[in-house]
Amino acid sequence: MTWWQTDETHEASLTSWVPGAAGHPVFPVQNLPFGIFSFENAEPRAGVAIGDAILDLRAVAELGLISPAAAAACGEATLNALLALPAHERRALRTALSKLLCDAAQRPAIEPLLRPSATCVLHLPARIGDYTDFYVGIHHANNIGRQFRPDNPLLPNYKHVPIGYHGRASSIRVSGVPLVRPKGQRKAPDADAPTYAPTARLDYELELGVWIGAGNALGEPIPVAEAGDHIAGFCLLNDWSARDLQAWEYQPLGPFLAKNFHSTISPWVITPEAMAPFRQAQPARPEGDPAPLPYLFDATDQAHGALALTLEVFLSTREMREQGTAPHRLSRGPASNMYWTVNQIVAHHASNGCNLQPGDLLGTGTISAPEREGFGSLMELSIGGKEPIALPNGQSRSFLEDGDEVILTATASREGYASIGLGECRAVVLPAT
Amino acid sequence: MTWWQTDETHEASLTSWVPGAAGHPVFPVQNLPFGIFSFENAEPRAGVAIGDAILDLRAVAELGLISPAAAAACGEATLNALLALPAHERRALRTALSKLLCDAAQRPAIEPLLRPSATCVLHLPARIGDYTDFYVGIHHANNIGRQFRPDNPLLPNYKHVPIGYHGRASSIRVSGVPLVRPKGQRKAPDADAPTYAPTARLDYELELGVWIGAGNALGEPIPVAEAGDHIAGFCLLNDWSARDLQAWEYQPLGPFLAKNFHSTISPWVITPEAMAPFRQAQPARPEGDPAPLPYLFDATDQAHGALALTLEVFLSTREMREQGTAPHRLSRGPASNMYWTVNQIVAHHASNGCNLQPGDLLGTGTISAPEREGFGSLMELSIGGKEPIALPNGQSRSFLEDGDEVILTATASREGYASIGLGECRAVVLPAT
Repeated sequence: MTWWQTDETHEASLTSWVPGAAGHPVFPVQNLPFGIFSFENAEPRAGVAIGDAILDLRAVAELGLISPAAAAACGEATLNALLALPAHERRALRTALSKLLCDAAQRPAIEPLLRPSATCVLHLPARIGDYTDFYVGIHHANNIGRQFRPDNPLLPNYKHVPIGYHGRASSIRVSGVPLVRPKGQRKAPDADAPTYAPTARLDYELELGVWIGAGNALGEPIPVAEAGDHIAGFCLLNDWSARDLQAWEYQPLGPFLAKNFHSTISPWVITPEAMAPFRQAQPARPEGDPAPLPYLFDATDQAHGALALTLEVFLSTREMREQGTAPHRLSRGPASNMYWTVNQIVAHHASNGCNLQPGDLLGTGTISAPEREGFGSLMELSIGGKEPIALPNGQSRSFLEDGDEVILTATASREGYASIGLGECRAVVLPAT
Repeated sequence: MTWWQTDETHEASLTSWVPGAAGHPVFPVQNLPFGIFSFENAEPRAGVAIGDAILDLRAVAELGLISPAAAAACGEATLNALLALPAHERRALRTALSKLLCDAAQRPAIEPLLRPSATCVLHLPARIGDYTDFYVGIHHANNIGRQFRPDNPLLPNYKHVPIGYHGRASSIRVSGVPLVRPKGQRKAPDADAPTYAPTARLDYELELGVWIGAGNALGEPIPVAEAGDHIAGFCLLNDWSARDLQAWEYQPLGPFLAKNFHSTISPWVITPEAMAPFRQAQPARPEGDPAPLPYLFDATDQAHGALALTLEVFLSTREMREQGTAPHRLSRGPASNMYWTVNQIVAHHASNGCNLQPGDLLGTGTISAPEREGFGSLMELSIGGKEPIALPNGQSRSFLEDGDEVILTATASREGYASIGLGECRAVVLPAT
């Protein structure tokens, strides 16, 4: 059993006794993602999503139904200890939970431990030690590079180095928390001097997040063949960006205030075990591209390291909500548009001995498809604001306006398996203070 | 009383009854820095350096000699709670400790709570949530910029924006912990392809660290006039850098693996209260430079915001230690070579609403003097490796070799006041694994 191998917990025929779980488009019993939730006056605790309910793992642990190591991890107010569990412990917990939720004989004991999701509050799943954002969406890199550096969109290192940079951990918020439009320095190319004002080019970025499980000691790289063992889950990530701040500040040390004012993640940690059926071969590199250096190459990773996910972005303006209009889909595309696998970015991150820790979060960078329907940011969709997007209700957008809500979703499907979702990553833009 | 105003705890005539404290060049009773230490089998706890001893603050708190808020903060295994204290609480604690250590009547009660520093182990003073590195040393920016971009050393934003970027919190280690030479991708300009190998251009960077005290809520900027209240202390910071990795990876998103393999800080948090006598006017900007935008300008900060510190870097090679040769001073220069004050970098960091938290660490960036004697890195001293530095024992260095130890120190002096030091920031380079 390894990160890409399926077991009995994936069988499409598995049916949970939880009402509404069978055929649930996001959280069937084949998913079983972990999160932190609270209800009424109870303190935040670990839970598992099943259908439209959340199973209280602290309560399950108190019944003595899971292993002592898993029970201890489930008793905390963050998932850090659970993420740190060895992969075999995490898999054993998954198997145990799958059985509890499918075996009708367990229903009397377990059903009282379910809470309707609609009555619960979801929290950040982990205390995020360090957050790193990568740049593996090659079509995004090309699109955005063309706007920042028309003569030089893709730099010479791109196909050799999984480019990444450190982001801000403190300002990551869970789905649903509104963001405040940031102020900052910006300077139009023809202006004499910069001004400090609310951003006029607020954007979203469609990314996947990767949760680190077991860490590595400082000074000890993680071989790419072992990188999968260090990944404890996946989520959606919106890397909100202020493009005018970014253009003015980003040289020579990279994006800073253009990004660190707020990032939004989906609340559920989708485990590698749940994603196992939805792994696929990394697309072959185009003819002429360099092969990855040996420290980034693993044949198993190349054969199974890509994620078969369909990513979608929806926009709901305040006017649309007042009109009762459904959110408008801005883009749709596959996660296979990643030039590097998630295992490669983990191995690269630790290749200099940098120590990753349980609960660290890695972003993939914006994932855009080659076609405009799959562009993962407004900067790309509106060609830097030059071609506003028409919305069905007559409104248009070059960049985000106050009151806009952006919703990211992702779905994994494969013939013969139950589809699962990553849940929602959404937030509304509030005016600058 | 504010961050630049002195009080009775600074009086040069103050004399502690602690043997060796009077006239101590680093830790006289006018300094009183906070740290985390352990001894024998005791767990890590808060302490204050005085002469060649450390006062156990947990034990002081247990005697009921300090305020309940301070006592609670001193009972933890990190300084985060102490750093988070309101400035008036921190000042009251300082005054109380100063009196306990100067009043001979207190000696019988307090002396048993002192531990000889030589018998103690120092730890990281705080759990660092986020670490941000700035780039305010304008001569460094010019020197290094000239090597990376000969035609364009100082970019157009430099004199408007306090340039900074996020660094890695997990790999920050306290003085004395050896670092492992990192491996990584590098590509010589004339090479066809990069290789993955131990860095051949390992360097140090001389920086000051700024400890954040009280934080701000997400979405709420910190006005520059209030920034001083959010700073809880200072330290020395060595931002170890692999120049060959940096040159190849840093575009377009900034330094990453070239920096995040290890950073070293001095163990003592030198408080703003201790530094109050050593504040001075920020040097006037050269004729023709733009004025700071209003959100970065505060007249009090301009009048008192600079730090009167002399910074020094020493190198001790393995051969020098075997020969019994003293460390060789590589550079010496004033901290006044900062284009932005520490209050300005704090205000800038939060100017987009980014939330700072107690225990966050900001680096100033390398502080170089205009003259070669004051260059803060080997990259500058050896002109990118082209002019090796001759050491007194006949060795030479372009970049660091295995076994080299780098030692940073800083001293604050002013006529009429007792000098204080920031302590040492040192580490030895171990071979790549």
